[in-house]
Amino acid sequence: MSQRFAVIMAGGRGERFWPQSRLKRPKHLLPIIGDTPMLCQTVDRLAGLVPPENVFVITNREQRPGVLAACPDLEPANVIGEPVGRDTAAAVGLAAILVKSSDDAGSAFAILPADAAIHDTKGFQKTLATAFEVAENGEYLVTVGIKPNNPATGYGYIQKGERLRPAGVDAIFEVKRFVEKPDLPTAEKYLQSGEYFWNAGMFVWRTDVIGNALSVYTPELWKALDKIEDGIGDGENLDSLLAEHYPNLDKISIDYAVMEKADNVLTVEANFDWDDVGEWPAIARHQSSDPKGNVLQGKGMIRDGSGNIVVNEKGHFTAIIGVDDLIVVQTGDATLICPKSKAQEIKKLVKEIEKNSDLEHLL
Amino acid sequence: MSQRFAVIMAGGRGERFWPQSRLKRPKHLLPIIGDTPMLCQTVDRLAGLVPPENVFVITNREQRPGVLAACPDLEPANVIGEPVGRDTAAAVGLAAILVKSSDDAGSAFAILPADAAIHDTKGFQKTLATAFEVAENGEYLVTVGIKPNNPATGYGYIQKGERLRPAGVDAIFEVKRFVEKPDLPTAEKYLQSGEYFWNAGMFVWRTDVIGNALSVYTPELWKALDKIEDGIGDGENLDSLLAEHYPNLDKISIDYAVMEKADNVLTVEANFDWDDVGEWPAIARHQSSDPKGNVLQGKGMIRDGSGNIVVNEKGHFTAIIGVDDLIVVQTGDATLICPKSKAQEIKKLVKEIEKNSDLEHLL
Repeated sequence: MSQRFAVIMAGGRGERFWPQSRLKRPKHLLPIIGDTPMLCQTVDRLAGLVPPENVFVITNREQRPGVLAACPDLEPANVIGEPVGRDTAAAVGLAAILVKSSDDAGSAFAILPADAAIHDTKGFQKTLATAFEVAENGEYLVTVGIKPNNPATGYGYIQKGERLRPAGVDAIFEVKRFVEKPDLPTAEKYLQSGEYFWNAGMFVWRTDVIGNALSVYTPELWKALDKIEDGIGDGENLDSLLAEHYPNLDKISIDYAVMEKADNVLTVEANFDWDDVGEWPAIARHQSSDPKGNVLQGKGMIRDGSGNIVVNEKGHFTAIIGVDDLIVVQTGDATLICPKSKAQEIKKLVKEIEKNSDLEHLL
Repeated sequence: MSQRFAVIMAGGRGERFWPQSRLKRPKHLLPIIGDTPMLCQTVDRLAGLVPPENVFVITNREQRPGVLAACPDLEPANVIGEPVGRDTAAAVGLAAILVKSSDDAGSAFAILPADAAIHDTKGFQKTLATAFEVAENGEYLVTVGIKPNNPATGYGYIQKGERLRPAGVDAIFEVKRFVEKPDLPTAEKYLQSGEYFWNAGMFVWRTDVIGNALSVYTPELWKALDKIEDGIGDGENLDSLLAEHYPNLDKISIDYAVMEKADNVLTVEANFDWDDVGEWPAIARHQSSDPKGNVLQGKGMIRDGSGNIVVNEKGHFTAIIGVDDLIVVQTGDATLICPKSKAQEIKKLVKEIEKNSDLEHLL
């Protein structure tokens, strides 16, 4: 049996969880849910399924030291810092190169986002094992489909086709199409139809299969990546190769470049809980709350208020009187106050702070 | 001409300005308005009117070191720490004793709260000089009356009687009666009638006149105070005398004990701005705001919000998105978030925190 690999995508600028997340300490380096950074949880979740030396992380140069500090179990040579972000198609291509440079036998590898919250490790491993099995034994681009429980507009959707395995075991489907983030009425239609999964950015495929897809659908990108691969083969330094070639790569997502076009896509229905914890309000789904639905991390007192989310640094005390559904996040140098309904504006706020050059509160 | 004295009342537990104010650092030790602690502003405001060596401060034992540290110009021997709080009648009696021990010639002294915001020092001195003049030349209990501009329910009121001086100079009135804090409909009636002043706790009287009033209306209190005065006369240590006798004094306010009963009360209409800055929303009256009425002390950004009051410690950055009329106060160890309309509940919150024994955030 060929080896299994996993490449964890740990980019992200950490805007939506400001002020706790910063440019150099984005969400995946924080214990937003649980006791360890989200990235470490993602690494730990692979134990037994993928050998530790086969786990790679693609991050950016600025965050690389933070990744190594946060997850000391990672092989330093397996943590790659992109010199610039070139979106997910380039990162997937780089991942394929990294895996091939370890084991050039058409091994399958999983692409996993660094910062999803998944509590059911057993279910995750079962689903992923199925995906590996399918990918290893066919010319398929295998995705993991998450059964939607609300008409989310923040994810792409996967329309499933014919079912390939009977009910009772992991459900595998053909894929009719990948669709980009829908508007709310469309998302509601998708949800009601029962025909759609969320695209969680989790894929499994063999190096030769994804390589072939990239060479067909994004030949320029693949040609440029070839230079990096050749350089590695010649024993050149990876960082220098990336510095030279990576900035020239097309900036395009793997969904748009490949998944929406390919006709050999299958999806395995996720048999585990999944939450991408996209913004502060999401943490309430993972934490205990008081009888009025307030979530309080750290010390504090909420007097006459409901549905608030309060996140304190250790030792700090936050007192709230008579407000509802507010997000309050307190760090040593910055505080955020924002209604839960306006959490999506935090990203804009961070851009505004950046524009005003108050960078000390972003880095 | 006899000397003039001032005794500043600097008690208070600092609850309403939590978390910036603390038990040991109440409002009068903070620069809530302006650049120096409110107490120091009160001291400075007397310059030229009362000689520095004749300015006394009555505070409590816990706060005395803070008073000396905050206002280094004060004569340390003139800063008295009460061992326990016994309300204002006892403090006024003690003030009379302190003044007499400096100058036993029936000098007049002013009683002043430590923490009012008064910007017009010239007007203040003019009014107080008039009050001194009246007190020095007659058997009067002279109060300073503040012309109300809203139906406040947080102050006592003074109903004025016949006017004793013609218009154009400081207006002096007989006093029909002192009334305790009214309810809102009553306060509205008072305001409309034009017959009432606010009682700001500012008095001027001669030591013999207030001594006589206390001996008539609160003979037990006066007798007990006598023991302290005798002890001072015998060269005993003031702190020891206070420790021995002060706890036994009746706990009663000067308004209730004397002002509501005496028939020799006059009031001088204040010819200056006055604000007791009773709670956080009041600071907006003294600070510049942005076009949407937001007041921001320190660093921060208010995105899509109006009427907020944000008070930051130096260097801290507070960002607000989409909320209105909120008080946000940020200190090194604690944060408060409260609608302006609920500012009066901060006191209850502090009591609740005290009950929960989170004392580190109160001291």
